[in-house]
Amino acid sequence: MSKPVTRREFLNLIAATSGTAAVLGITSALGMIPSSTQASVPDLLKLSNQKRKAVILGAGISGLTVAYELTKAGYDCTVLEASHRAGGRVFTVRAGTLIDEIGNPQYCDWDDEPHLYFNAGAARIPSTHSNVLHYCKELGVELEMFINENKAAWIQDDNIMGGKPIRNRELSTNVRGFMAELMAKAMKDGELDEPFSDDEAEIVMNMIRSFGDLNSDFKYTGSDRAGYASGDYVTHTTQHEMIKMRDLLKASALRQVVTDNEGETGPMLMQAVGGNDRIPYGFVNQIEDKIKFRAMVTAINLKEKGVTVQYDYDGERHTIEADYCFNSIPTHFMAGIEHNLPDDYAKDMKYIRRGVAMKGAFQAKERFWEKEGIYGGITWTNQPIRQIWYPAHGIHKQKGVILAAYDYGNGMPYTRLKQEERIEMMLAQGEKVHPDYRQHCEKGITIAWHRMNHMLGCSARWRVQTPEEERIFNNLQSSVNGTYWCIGDQISHHTAWMESAMQSAHFALADLDQRVRAEVANA
Amino acid sequence: MSKPVTRREFLNLIAATSGTAAVLGITSALGMIPSSTQASVPDLLKLSNQKRKAVILGAGISGLTVAYELTKAGYDCTVLEASHRAGGRVFTVRAGTLIDEIGNPQYCDWDDEPHLYFNAGAARIPSTHSNVLHYCKELGVELEMFINENKAAWIQDDNIMGGKPIRNRELSTNVRGFMAELMAKAMKDGELDEPFSDDEAEIVMNMIRSFGDLNSDFKYTGSDRAGYASGDYVTHTTQHEMIKMRDLLKASALRQVVTDNEGETGPMLMQAVGGNDRIPYGFVNQIEDKIKFRAMVTAINLKEKGVTVQYDYDGERHTIEADYCFNSIPTHFMAGIEHNLPDDYAKDMKYIRRGVAMKGAFQAKERFWEKEGIYGGITWTNQPIRQIWYPAHGIHKQKGVILAAYDYGNGMPYTRLKQEERIEMMLAQGEKVHPDYRQHCEKGITIAWHRMNHMLGCSARWRVQTPEEERIFNNLQSSVNGTYWCIGDQISHHTAWMESAMQSAHFALADLDQRVRAEVANA
Repeated sequence: MSKPVTRREFLNLIAATSGTAAVLGITSALGMIPSSTQASVPDLLKLSNQKRKAVILGAGISGLTVAYELTKAGYDCTVLEASHRAGGRVFTVRAGTLIDEIGNPQYCDWDDEPHLYFNAGAARIPSTHSNVLHYCKELGVELEMFINENKAAWIQDDNIMGGKPIRNRELSTNVRGFMAELMAKAMKDGELDEPFSDDEAEIVMNMIRSFGDLNSDFKYTGSDRAGYASGDYVTHTTQHEMIKMRDLLKASALRQVVTDNEGETGPMLMQAVGGNDRIPYGFVNQIEDKIKFRAMVTAINLKEKGVTVQYDYDGERHTIEADYCFNSIPTHFMAGIEHNLPDDYAKDMKYIRRGVAMKGAFQAKERFWEKEGIYGGITWTNQPIRQIWYPAHGIHKQKGVILAAYDYGNGMPYTRLKQEERIEMMLAQGEKVHPDYRQHCEKGITIAWHRMNHMLGCSARWRVQTPEEERIFNNLQSSVNGTYWCIGDQISHHTAWMESAMQSAHFALADLDQRVRAEVANA
Repeated sequence: MSKPVTRREFLNLIAATSGTAAVLGITSALGMIPSSTQASVPDLLKLSNQKRKAVILGAGISGLTVAYELTKAGYDCTVLEASHRAGGRVFTVRAGTLIDEIGNPQYCDWDDEPHLYFNAGAARIPSTHSNVLHYCKELGVELEMFINENKAAWIQDDNIMGGKPIRNRELSTNVRGFMAELMAKAMKDGELDEPFSDDEAEIVMNMIRSFGDLNSDFKYTGSDRAGYASGDYVTHTTQHEMIKMRDLLKASALRQVVTDNEGETGPMLMQAVGGNDRIPYGFVNQIEDKIKFRAMVTAINLKEKGVTVQYDYDGERHTIEADYCFNSIPTHFMAGIEHNLPDDYAKDMKYIRRGVAMKGAFQAKERFWEKEGIYGGITWTNQPIRQIWYPAHGIHKQKGVILAAYDYGNGMPYTRLKQEERIEMMLAQGEKVHPDYRQHCEKGITIAWHRMNHMLGCSARWRVQTPEEERIFNNLQSSVNGTYWCIGDQISHHTAWMESAMQSAHFALADLDQRVRAEVANA
């Protein structure tokens, strides 16, 4: 059945695996790291006597950023938001929150305590997201550490170890042992393009041994790093038996575990204390009087100079005139809005697809994961729930809220299920990881972003890679007549992040500012 | 100069690198992970009418654990502590703290704010330290996340990149690229002991490519994961140029960076909110009336039944009689204390050496590291300061306290320096990492644990590995006559951790309890 990999087969393998380059590309994109540690906030020309009016469509992160910065610069801003709340996909669920999923609305009935919340949308803030951090500082949003990677959490996969959960550290330690043996073998075979001196080779060999915890013969025979089978700090210990690579390689989380992504999914991340909606509401606190909630845009009419926007509010149609319009409405909603944007622009908007995403959460009557030695981090499973996240805040309190499902991008058959069926599915799948899961978990909530009111999709789904995509991106990123800008993470190289929404807002603001400064200079 | 590594040379290399096995052993010990997620607190028989008296020497973690548990069980406890404070090497420095280093006493004059503190001793709590976590919960000590590993922090090494600091992620990403190429080469050569099927090999190849971010030819040509040279989320990016392994392998932090230790130095750690001395003081709050500070033990006299302890307090000699004695005084101090412990026991105590350790810290007028995109974690340098730690708490506040030096185990020439010279050394070395270091850092403090009053050493230094060491360990761990126990992390397989001190205390308590239960049963 099994046979050695020959050189020829290896070359075939390269061809075969190249087919997965797209998938690998996504992995790589997850590690995107902006080059600057400085925020990109443009230094807008402060308006004095002449009033300029801006209408901003959508009170998500990009719309709020534009409204906040323009207000500071002396512009007269109005934000029209279709839903009852600000933040868009930055959405925190806690006691009393309405989840307005179409066909499946829920009110959250968890205990009313500050640590019992769930970030149903944006959850993680990398230290490379300078603009998010800049605004948190400026708006007084307190931050704390978020734990993404925890080797004490579980890997449960029906395809390995008979479906029995093992600690992440068991998987990663054994895989690293295998990897290190491979490296040592390659060093031994001595066919390196640039050979090392003896001293250099010794350093490399020591590094390899240390990487995989190999023995003095450069063999992996198990490692303390996988955790002890028995013993502690005052008695002798015994190691777990090593697990062979063959027995682990069907784990769907394998690449996830070994890749150790830097950047947005690295181990070092942050969250806003009390829930990430503190960030949009940090903006709202500054410009509350500028925002109209439950205002549904029906028409955008660009004029020779300025723009007219119509919207429905409180059962009536209203009209607003402005000099500028910043539109963060998801492009796939624009088909239902009357507008006179240029044909090519309207066509390009349609190119952008939206992703699907499902999250679920429970209130846990007891923080059972802490009894298992888990403080924050993620359990990976090959079941449809895919992930379980444990909170790194509220340590040792009685209750906690855990993420019980997080699936993005797949068909997600269970968004078609009734709410009770979704809950049952989360319980049944969680039980494979934590045997007492069902008795601890209560008051489950779920959210299917592709069915959420005023959203009907998770993040925009496209990549700026082909020349055609670049043309589309540049077209949508550019203003129409210096009057209208499309904004949001949907107009970025890296959708689904607050940072992208802010940078997109800044890009549009900088463009506006350049035009205003030119006008003022020519006046 | 450089030449390929032949098979013969490779075998020589194994021999050569085996000489470093001791060092590698220490690396491995750093990852020690107790097998149980349950605390080891023994269930002591509750005493009712009959009083039993215990004298506990030392109010460090082990002494406090014993006194707390025995008090709960109805024992009459007295704790004698030589210094003015509890906690021993769990010591937090903040405004007003006295650092009683002999010949170099300092009072800390930082601003008096809750986030401006420095854990001069125990700093990190791994999630595997079940007993520490148990007591934090029971004593109401609030915990928060501690960031150990941060790939945004710096690697500065005079031996690489001309001494110019590079981000940890640049080092680790490039090294991983090299490693992955080695692995791909070994797979290609197809001499695996247990060959893979095509399907398996494809999984492994994909994993390897993902691990190192290799291109479709399984070559490493640089990676986004090292950070961008330019660009962001709304413009195109350019990669940093790849750095060759040869240019990186002299970094003293190389193994540190690639090893990704699990357990005590893994990415997921905790600290007590407000300083780790909240933990010993959590105990003190429960048993404050049992502790005599500034009480120096002068004699321990075991009797046929019970023990007499003499101590100096307030200028006078005192005597205390007790049924039991738990002694956490560092064994190297016992030479100065009159005692009648058995000769072989006294001799074995002398086997244990003490380590040296130096830490230093500054108050920073501004959290300059956050402007560099660093939120918590460690910068590594090959200079004598070795490490700079950035606080993960107090994010975005004006000031912060950073660890400016942490050296353990080396000759540490600069503990011989005057205080001003130590400060200057920390500044001059820190400047190589952060050019504006000197202008931001003020009010430096230093602490040399091997010169600290009542301590004169960092943790005990020995390993329970040879048969002779095992004999010594077992002898010292056993009670003398069921009356006297030596406790502390010094009597553990893994010194320098609070967890070890607690487990040592529990071991002694369990032994006592067994004896008491037998007595009661026979009475």
